Amino acid sequence: MKTLIIVSHPELANSGTQSFLRAATRYLDAVTWHGLDADYPDFAINVQKEQQLLSTADRIIFQFPLYWYSSPALLKKWQDDVLTRNFTYRDQDGMLAGKQLGIVMTLGNPLKNYVAGGFEGVSISELVKPYQAIAKQAGMDFLPPFTVDQFSYMTAAQKARLLSDYQNYIANPTPFSFNGKQKWLIQRLRAKAARIDDQQQRTLLNLTIDQIENNGDELDALKDQIAMIKRGDDE
Amino acid sequence: MKTLIIVSHPELANSGTQSFLRAATRYLDAVTWHGLDADYPDFAINVQKEQQLLSTADRIIFQFPLYWYSSPALLKKWQDDVLTRNFTYRDQDGMLAGKQLGIVMTLGNPLKNYVAGGFEGVSISELVKPYQAIAKQAGMDFLPPFTVDQFSYMTAAQKARLLSDYQNYIANPTPFSFNGKQKWLIQRLRAKAARIDDQQQRTLLNLTIDQIENNGDELDALKDQIAMIKRGDDE
Repeated sequence: MKTLIIVSHPELANSGTQSFLRAATRYLDAVTWHGLDADYPDFAINVQKEQQLLSTADRIIFQFPLYWYSSPALLKKWQDDVLTRNFTYRDQDGMLAGKQLGIVMTLGNPLKNYVAGGFEGVSISELVKPYQAIAKQAGMDFLPPFTVDQFSYMTAAQKARLLSDYQNYIANPTPFSFNGKQKWLIQRLRAKAARIDDQQQRTLLNLTIDQIENNGDELDALKDQIAMIKRGDDE
Repeated sequence: MKTLIIVSHPELANSGTQSFLRAATRYLDAVTWHGLDADYPDFAINVQKEQQLLSTADRIIFQFPLYWYSSPALLKKWQDDVLTRNFTYRDQDGMLAGKQLGIVMTLGNPLKNYVAGGFEGVSISELVKPYQAIAKQAGMDFLPPFTVDQFSYMTAAQKARLLSDYQNYIANPTPFSFNGKQKWLIQRLRAKAARIDDQQQRTLLNLTIDQIENNGDELDALKDQIAMIKRGDDE
């Protein structure tokens, strides 16, 4: 699965959040990081090049800081120019049908403010409606949005969790189920183990992976037992 | 009351809808039509000039064709640049508190498509949420959005109605009640009558205005009678 991350951020070089997220993609195969601001400082988009990039991706991510409850203007210019009717609409045999569209949104304010009656008064689900509507017209699967709020206040442990969650969102073909997450984690750990030269360290990592898999099997067995007990109660 | 209409339309010269709406404002005092595309072809906004314009207005209108479920990119660039934190946020003593914000949105597709389960799958009320949230932060009154759908298919009678409704939305201080609309209509007709040189025509128009006012009085009397009958029924 190929992922294209389209980043719109007028202050990209000064953004600790974006540096962190970009570093997280370096360990992932088949992920392309595409920053719009460096390529198009004059807002004149190369439509053909962008459409070509989109055609090769399976998962497309719009990644941006929330500016006035939407993306920065450059991503909107990109949408207005690149997503032509013929290229986009499913009912015009557009080129995006069957692909996925995800949103990575960074927030300066706490996520809990984005609720009816809250300081922002509007929810993230409401704010991504325009992107969801684009996905609908294009015949794309729209992924639940991924939000990062108040990155600069995060502890090291919170950042480690963010890194793992973000990599899962960007590159895991099945990112939203527990089993899907675990399967992908094990795949990646096995690949990492194969690249380790030191035999002792490699053995240690493989044992850890076995342990994770065994834990998974044990969880499945426990679920079966609970299901049996429930059936007994019902009878 | 002063109104500032901020128009964002990349194809303004080719838009029959926008020409029609612009012509409708020519007969209104204290309305400023401000097209962004002619002033900022390179997306480099003059922030100071724009903030100055905003400061002098009581009602601010964002007017645009819906592009991918939002405004064209240039209005977003204008928002990102002009609506600085200090200038905008009420809790920073911003300059917009107490003003009104209205949205005039033109649609190429029928308005009835903008509904859950419809072709667009999203409602106009959902699409204006970002503007409503800006109004909330700025301490502005957010007006119900004004939509114009499929202008090119309208009959002459429908266009006449649109002209009157649009003028009411743009310039009537109390645009959303029946009495508020009628009061404003009578004011404008009286002003028009005063400018007519031909005495016979002027008399005719004044008689018509009297008739409208009498009809209004008669409606009020009928309402009172209905209220009395209802009270009688209740006793």
